[in-house]
Amino acid sequence: MADQYAQSGEAVRPSDVAAMPAIPAIRWDEPPEGPVLVLLDQTRLPAEETELVCTDPPALVQAIRTLAVRGAPLLGIAGAYGVALAAARGFDVDEAADALAGARPTAVNLAYGARRAQAAYRKAVAGGADEQQAAAAVLATARALHKEDAEASARMAVHGLALLDELMPGGRPRVLTHCNTGALVSGGEGTAFAVALAAHREGRLRRLWVDETRPLLQGARLTAYEAARAGMPYTLLTDNAAGSLFAAGEVDAVLIGADRIAADGSVANKVGSYPLAVLARYHHVPFIVVAPVTTVDPDTPDGAAIEVEQRASHEVTEVTVPFVPVTGAEVGGGISVAPLGTQAYNPAFDVTPPELVTAVVTEEGVVSPVTTEGLAELCARSRQVTIS
Amino acid sequence: MADQYAQSGEAVRPSDVAAMPAIPAIRWDEPPEGPVLVLLDQTRLPAEETELVCTDPPALVQAIRTLAVRGAPLLGIAGAYGVALAAARGFDVDEAADALAGARPTAVNLAYGARRAQAAYRKAVAGGADEQQAAAAVLATARALHKEDAEASARMAVHGLALLDELMPGGRPRVLTHCNTGALVSGGEGTAFAVALAAHREGRLRRLWVDETRPLLQGARLTAYEAARAGMPYTLLTDNAAGSLFAAGEVDAVLIGADRIAADGSVANKVGSYPLAVLARYHHVPFIVVAPVTTVDPDTPDGAAIEVEQRASHEVTEVTVPFVPVTGAEVGGGISVAPLGTQAYNPAFDVTPPELVTAVVTEEGVVSPVTTEGLAELCARSRQVTIS
Repeated sequence: MADQYAQSGEAVRPSDVAAMPAIPAIRWDEPPEGPVLVLLDQTRLPAEETELVCTDPPALVQAIRTLAVRGAPLLGIAGAYGVALAAARGFDVDEAADALAGARPTAVNLAYGARRAQAAYRKAVAGGADEQQAAAAVLATARALHKEDAEASARMAVHGLALLDELMPGGRPRVLTHCNTGALVSGGEGTAFAVALAAHREGRLRRLWVDETRPLLQGARLTAYEAARAGMPYTLLTDNAAGSLFAAGEVDAVLIGADRIAADGSVANKVGSYPLAVLARYHHVPFIVVAPVTTVDPDTPDGAAIEVEQRASHEVTEVTVPFVPVTGAEVGGGISVAPLGTQAYNPAFDVTPPELVTAVVTEEGVVSPVTTEGLAELCARSRQVTIS
Repeated sequence: MADQYAQSGEAVRPSDVAAMPAIPAIRWDEPPEGPVLVLLDQTRLPAEETELVCTDPPALVQAIRTLAVRGAPLLGIAGAYGVALAAARGFDVDEAADALAGARPTAVNLAYGARRAQAAYRKAVAGGADEQQAAAAVLATARALHKEDAEASARMAVHGLALLDELMPGGRPRVLTHCNTGALVSGGEGTAFAVALAAHREGRLRRLWVDETRPLLQGARLTAYEAARAGMPYTLLTDNAAGSLFAAGEVDAVLIGADRIAADGSVANKVGSYPLAVLARYHHVPFIVVAPVTTVDPDTPDGAAIEVEQRASHEVTEVTVPFVPVTGAEVGGGISVAPLGTQAYNPAFDVTPPELVTAVVTEEGVVSPVTTEGLAELCARSRQVTIS
């Protein structure tokens, strides 16, 4: 089966994708009109690379809710910059931090970024800084977080690649991934995707199987886009076709990101991750979670304590293609594919228990098997590094 | 969680759906211009109920390939009527039977229907019938098959309901289903869907969870449409959200159809069925296959011998909504959701091994556990019935 796709996959680097300029997923800018946060609008990819300019925190909250900016690590960076924007533009910083931290409930990084920036603001004010100095302090914190995330990304790639090597010495793995975990979600090259990309650069990625990731198709729209740009051998599939790949022995490892990791190692990630974990276990395939240490939330004891965001029915009952003008638009502005009035069960995430996770790869190292103690030790190591 | 949906689900019977006329999925007609086979075009549901008139076998082959007519039992009926059309319109009957039998490789019923009609033709000709008499004999066979399928449907519903009762005495099950298995695929009320409908009529269906069934969304488009028409409490979900339902204990049984059942009990069904079987096993939930005896193919020894139809990439890389005029149409006439040049792995079916199937429900009774011997016995019983 691999051969069937090798020809097209190896060759695919669509010129229109490769020719596109690389717009960063997020950037701070200071035009004469005042500071702004500029986002690459991810809802319009891969058809268009459009920038979305946020001049105030409410605009950013809206962009977070509509997934124009998304992905756990990037949400952390966005949260911090959002508080910086509030400080620079004279908004109430505490109110902005609350709104940003609560814009989406599952990704812990968002609250982490917003709260860390808020703490920097309070510390500056408590230290006698004026508004401008406090704003500068918050911005410096957001920039530090942004840089730390880029560095964490590179270190996750190193640790992840070493783990793949250990699991499959000298092998060229076929990696299955879900949702989008590359440069679009990170200050650097991402989490799970960064590992696959590192393998590709060493000529060792045999294939990247890309789950399309319904309902919002982050795999088809974003991961395929990033894989095509990087010249990786990739093949897209519907989420439910992954079972056939496992059954055919075509998957050597699953690599996914995480939106929150509970203290016990339960992993909240994009809906569809848990079925992959069950399939991986059934087929004795390693299921590897790649995420920065900030994704581990010691305040969430276990999977049951993770709040899973429930999203609107219309994401499922309609196909939303905002970059194509259509007639017959319904409730959510998309094309209705189910009878009117149909209700959908639409959790944005699911929770994989630690016993199904082969390893958690972070910038501080790998935890395997995944235990409360192992994760706590890693977090302690990370705090030492941060403090020192 | 059930409560969250009960309100909307119980009430949902969208007036626009309920008000639609019930057009049969297939019907033979004899207007003055000559006999035709009239199909309800399933690619245009639920937005439009359009009839597709086939005046010759090639048109029917095309309708089968594009899934205007689909679903294992209905394909058998269509195959038989297609041969009847060939005979009535003066086409080469053997050639037509070959083309119809091979139009899609996985559903065994299609070949069964076409070959049974072909045999009736040959028998009539061998018995001295003229062209008109032979054509009448084929049509009678197609009509008999149509009627048998309707009866089989009703009997499957009885056996399936009894099985649910046995597994969950006095309970009101929450049933998860995949793809579409109702009146749109049958001369009667279908296979798996007919069981759920029978439960609903007895006031015992707590909820029907409807997998949307990517890539062609038969669940969202067709099963939701049939469930809404029947006033059933149903909720739609993306295929990958089923894992969350299992984890939350919200699924009491999985009911699916089949396109081919090998002699050993391996079940080929719409892609995404196998992952559900693995999830069901992991969560100790019964996984029940409902199909007529004609779906059991004694000539296919096991799952490895089942040919799985691979379909075009554009079904995955584009969202095809033929009933909505769009701009920006690509290769397959749909809306591109992945970078140009992206290749997709797109098997139409997957294969579930017998050890993951709790029971096979047929019109002749239930086989559980699923064994070669059990299935063979059932088929023998069916042949006795047919011969007597």
